[in-house]
Amino acid sequence: MILSHHNTFKRKAFKAKVIMKNLRSHHTIKPSYIREILQAATNTEVISLAGGLPAESSFPVEIFREATSRLLDDPTALQYSTTEGEHALRHWVAKRHKAESSQILITNGAQQAMDLVARTFIEAGDKVVVEVPAYLGALQVFQLARANIISIVQTPTGPDLEQLESAFQQRPKLFYAVPDFHNPTGCCWTGETRREVVNLAEKYGVMIMEDAPYRELRYSGLSLPSLYELAPEQVCHIGSFSKVAAPGLRLGFLCAGSHGQDQLISQVALVKQATDLHSSTFCQRLLLSYLKEPLYSSHIHKLQNHYRHRRDTLISALQRCLGSKVNVSCPEGGMFLWPTLPGVNTDELAKQALKKHVAIVPGSVFYPNQAIAANDKMRLNFTHATADLLIEGVERLSGVINTM
Amino acid sequence: MILSHHNTFKRKAFKAKVIMKNLRSHHTIKPSYIREILQAATNTEVISLAGGLPAESSFPVEIFREATSRLLDDPTALQYSTTEGEHALRHWVAKRHKAESSQILITNGAQQAMDLVARTFIEAGDKVVVEVPAYLGALQVFQLARANIISIVQTPTGPDLEQLESAFQQRPKLFYAVPDFHNPTGCCWTGETRREVVNLAEKYGVMIMEDAPYRELRYSGLSLPSLYELAPEQVCHIGSFSKVAAPGLRLGFLCAGSHGQDQLISQVALVKQATDLHSSTFCQRLLLSYLKEPLYSSHIHKLQNHYRHRRDTLISALQRCLGSKVNVSCPEGGMFLWPTLPGVNTDELAKQALKKHVAIVPGSVFYPNQAIAANDKMRLNFTHATADLLIEGVERLSGVINTM
Repeated sequence: MILSHHNTFKRKAFKAKVIMKNLRSHHTIKPSYIREILQAATNTEVISLAGGLPAESSFPVEIFREATSRLLDDPTALQYSTTEGEHALRHWVAKRHKAESSQILITNGAQQAMDLVARTFIEAGDKVVVEVPAYLGALQVFQLARANIISIVQTPTGPDLEQLESAFQQRPKLFYAVPDFHNPTGCCWTGETRREVVNLAEKYGVMIMEDAPYRELRYSGLSLPSLYELAPEQVCHIGSFSKVAAPGLRLGFLCAGSHGQDQLISQVALVKQATDLHSSTFCQRLLLSYLKEPLYSSHIHKLQNHYRHRRDTLISALQRCLGSKVNVSCPEGGMFLWPTLPGVNTDELAKQALKKHVAIVPGSVFYPNQAIAANDKMRLNFTHATADLLIEGVERLSGVINTM
Repeated sequence: MILSHHNTFKRKAFKAKVIMKNLRSHHTIKPSYIREILQAATNTEVISLAGGLPAESSFPVEIFREATSRLLDDPTALQYSTTEGEHALRHWVAKRHKAESSQILITNGAQQAMDLVARTFIEAGDKVVVEVPAYLGALQVFQLARANIISIVQTPTGPDLEQLESAFQQRPKLFYAVPDFHNPTGCCWTGETRREVVNLAEKYGVMIMEDAPYRELRYSGLSLPSLYELAPEQVCHIGSFSKVAAPGLRLGFLCAGSHGQDQLISQVALVKQATDLHSSTFCQRLLLSYLKEPLYSSHIHKLQNHYRHRRDTLISALQRCLGSKVNVSCPEGGMFLWPTLPGVNTDELAKQALKKHVAIVPGSVFYPNQAIAANDKMRLNFTHATADLLIEGVERLSGVINTM
């Protein structure tokens, strides 16, 4: 009996191995290190500066509470809908981007928009240009598409244009760009860089994937034109409602093509249809209840004030506690600081800091190629923790740095 | 001025063409014909027997209405969540499938579960076995993955086992199976067929993708074991909440692996993370408010009575209006009838019927290979239209058939 049981176990283990042998060879997709840190940071004693979470206190809870009952009076809010998205939501996005509704596809957050564009355009081995350091979620998308990633360096004004041009000469399919408040660096491209990048993209016929989840989170300085506004024929503009409304709805969008050219959206929508039919009807309608003026503008205004205060609190705390041990510049928007700690290995710091119940993300994880990684940088989020916790987090962190 | 305007237009059209030239070569994905018919059927004068929509009157609107306000008291309902899904929801699914939570991944409907499994396992050119006629959404998934589709014939008891074995001898990666109330045929595999199929799959080391969206919609006969219950190591079981709760939430799940083997789910979750981070937190928690006993069982019971009545109404109407011109068998569950109209070309019938404001789906669209398509079959949905409209729809349809 025991023997037979043992045999059954061996037989099952063997079979499972057979199935797992069938896996596609995309083992290059690593579980996001940030997700692991976030997991550790769910311990309530940990102060997390690691994630990219918006403040829960900023969610439009009361608006949603008021809206849900009314929405449910129409049971089609729970029915299947169209792949492209709810018409009123597409219309709202189109208006803000000076586009037509037919140029908008509603997606499950910006992440899905990236993935769908990649699946529509990228063949295995195609070249994709990425500024480094880079958003990990984008790297995962391009790794899944088996793209050949060409890294170029980011300067304080945007991508290094010489490197960009020589990358474009290698005939890449796509350039992944985050012009507004880059994750992790906070960098905002200058107006001049934006114009030069779209000129280069036009010259070499490269499509730009413009990832703009933080565009509305500007706390100082003047808003600059999006790459899509500069060259709609050349740019797939990707937006998110996770930072301005709520991530739990999982809603974002793709805006692409110029007026009268909806072929691109049609092609991406075909891929979305095969992928998950459409995004949640109920979440789309719930979101629409909040996208009303002056409600929306006033909410964004409050959010900006809220996050500006937290950004300034975190910078002051770093300067007060670490003095000349830290170099930090002030981003004009977004969710992150990207300080340098000269001489400190931040991989080691992240491990030590977690023991003292503060979570940060070491800079090295944002580089697809570890050899060129900046090991003395770290990413600190300032939108999720309260001002008091930001200060306490920095105090704990500086305690750890002083013992290293 | 006019000339320059004209040039700008030409320049833009040229650029758009350059971008569109970059499309991947998956033009094999055709827009679903059903979606086109559904579009036409949104005309309120059209009686639609074409779609696969559940009855809106069956949605748990009052339960959701009561739950939302309470859910919103906890703002984490709107926050980012884990890729695998809300723990309580995974636990609920696991319990019903005699699995562990770690073997469950929550997805955006069953469609996404299919796509994620395909992306995790299928390389371009890999063979996938499919019973025909087949669910179009699955064909789209396999076409997007560039699989090589091997069609086998479906008999009234399930797949033709001789054809299945010779297909398995060609070393396919996967067999796509819908054992419970197949779309479009309504076929329910016998217990014997189920056991023989898993034996063959074990013998040849083929993974089974078991698509079971209609499993709970049984109106007569006894429930049979799922393929997953018979051979958990061999089967990726895919379920949906669209038919038993509401499609607008876009929630389904993957249940895979046997106890203690969560490697498969981990791999698929990595792909989901790159795809859209996670499914809507809010929709998952809303769904959980409804998945409570005895609430859930009583809701399913009502749904079964409701749909049984509509199925029987549609069959009676067909027999009364069309007599010997129609052969229709009574499915034990699901959402569709699959009648034969000997001598009638249903492609032509569908076009003519739409002019008389009744929408049906011709059988041919469910065949990946038009050459073997059954042109005298049609798919009729009985879950969405009311009993009165089902009767009027059949009367209109028989009017059209009599003039053909």
